Amino acid sequence: MRIIRKPRDLRTLSERWRNAGKLVGLVPTMGALHAGHLALVRASVARCDRTIVSVFVNPKQFGPREDLKRYPRPFARDCALLRRAGVDAVFHPSACSMYGPDFATTVEVGGTLTFGLCSPHRPGHFRGVATVVAKLFNIARPHAAFFGAKDFQQAEVVKRMARDLDMGVEVVVLPAVRERDGLAMSSRNAYLSPEERAAAVALSRSLRAGAAEIGRGNRAAREVRAVMRRILAKEPLARVEYLDINDAGTLRPLVRLKGRVLMALAVRLGGTRLIDNMVMRVPARPGSRRRVVGNR
Amino acid sequence: MRIIRKPRDLRTLSERWRNAGKLVGLVPTMGALHAGHLALVRASVARCDRTIVSVFVNPKQFGPREDLKRYPRPFARDCALLRRAGVDAVFHPSACSMYGPDFATTVEVGGTLTFGLCSPHRPGHFRGVATVVAKLFNIARPHAAFFGAKDFQQAEVVKRMARDLDMGVEVVVLPAVRERDGLAMSSRNAYLSPEERAAAVALSRSLRAGAAEIGRGNRAAREVRAVMRRILAKEPLARVEYLDINDAGTLRPLVRLKGRVLMALAVRLGGTRLIDNMVMRVPARPGSRRRVVGNR
Repeated sequence: MRIIRKPRDLRTLSERWRNAGKLVGLVPTMGALHAGHLALVRASVARCDRTIVSVFVNPKQFGPREDLKRYPRPFARDCALLRRAGVDAVFHPSACSMYGPDFATTVEVGGTLTFGLCSPHRPGHFRGVATVVAKLFNIARPHAAFFGAKDFQQAEVVKRMARDLDMGVEVVVLPAVRERDGLAMSSRNAYLSPEERAAAVALSRSLRAGAAEIGRGNRAAREVRAVMRRILAKEPLARVEYLDINDAGTLRPLVRLKGRVLMALAVRLGGTRLIDNMVMRVPARPGSRRRVVGNR
Repeated sequence: MRIIRKPRDLRTLSERWRNAGKLVGLVPTMGALHAGHLALVRASVARCDRTIVSVFVNPKQFGPREDLKRYPRPFARDCALLRRAGVDAVFHPSACSMYGPDFATTVEVGGTLTFGLCSPHRPGHFRGVATVVAKLFNIARPHAAFFGAKDFQQAEVVKRMARDLDMGVEVVVLPAVRERDGLAMSSRNAYLSPEERAAAVALSRSLRAGAAEIGRGNRAAREVRAVMRRILAKEPLARVEYLDINDAGTLRPLVRLKGRVLMALAVRLGGTRLIDNMVMRVPARPGSRRRVVGNR
């Protein structure tokens, strides 16, 4: 497994692979890898001839008061995991090699995808994500790139960007991986105290309660959200940042539930911000069978 | 010469060329080709194994009150010229195939490059340019792309975008081509009445007067601009939109002239907006030899 730090070295390697007819997969990460990342890596290794994993804590997607500095960076451990998973190259650039002193370009996905959910709470976040992913796609030139559905809005933004800018990259989104009690895997779970970790199960419990309420035939977003909020209210440590039910395609908020529906929430536990979501196919006629279509 | 209308067909063709080891050149145009475009095409044909010319009147780079509708579109004539010039493929997409109904992504170059000159007069213009050029680069996957120095700010924006987003495209900028009386070639020259055409020579005359003034040792931007304005003031048909002297690297306005200096202007003649510019190397010590370094 090669460890590559210079953008131009990765481009040269990837071009060589492409010219030799190899299918190239990319898994963009910020490191601090967990089972969710490794599921993406396994999917890439299974589907592609060569797999590149980028490990880059992208400063542009952090707000000024966010956790850029304390974000975990266990690079040696990450490399050991990736080597064992059969990865061909790890791309681990410095911030300077990604953003020179007069860097001035941004890629932004507008419209309904970045109107609600995390957007108003993390100004500039998706602009930072879109910009760095555009760069990573241009440097690594993958045929396919793998993202986790835990960051549902991020995955939608990346899919739209890749399509709008004709990047020629297939964006593959895989279900979130969860702990046994339902907590979605996240590098930020490491920040939680034991009490916060116990309280964190309320996120997925709230989503399941919402799904059950919809399953009972309730199609009023306001009422389903109230059911979900009640679960979170039982945890004194949890402060809800948002709890929304949106159309899973446009990400517009829904009043009546119908079609592919996204339940999504962000919750603060002490200084840690966690997000989770669930997508359901909701039949128009109340009471008919529901089906969870993603991110179990 | 192939005429290609679907983005995916061009990508397939270009990937085939790249995989066969061919150097691919791209000349992005809005059609209505003149000798300036053809100089870019000749440069690409000379330097690359395959040359693609895109002919696309990009709606996103026109303001609501600009000339999108009346912009000339002599496609058959353009194709005849390109065939004769040895072009391998013309990319002529429909607006719908470039911008679907829920298109939502923009690429923007910020900082000093888009603060002055045409930017305040054409809000959104360079965003539209950067976005379409990003798409064209992603679709055509060229090794090199050719732009004319008549649109100096545009070329700087494209160079910066390509570098910032690691596009792996060499952006080549060639000098403006001029009519015998000095008027820079532009598809918009066709809009001019005979009287306006006669008055249009004032743009290049003004630039030459500025260069002469600098050559005489004047290093005060305000005074050189006054000399240039006096030339334009003699033409009653010409209304100056801007007349600036900026650093040619950062595009910041200059007070004292030094280094690579850009003289740039935009002038309206009736309903037609024309731009022109000249770059000079200005030695710090007044009176020493000047050298014009680009866009003669």
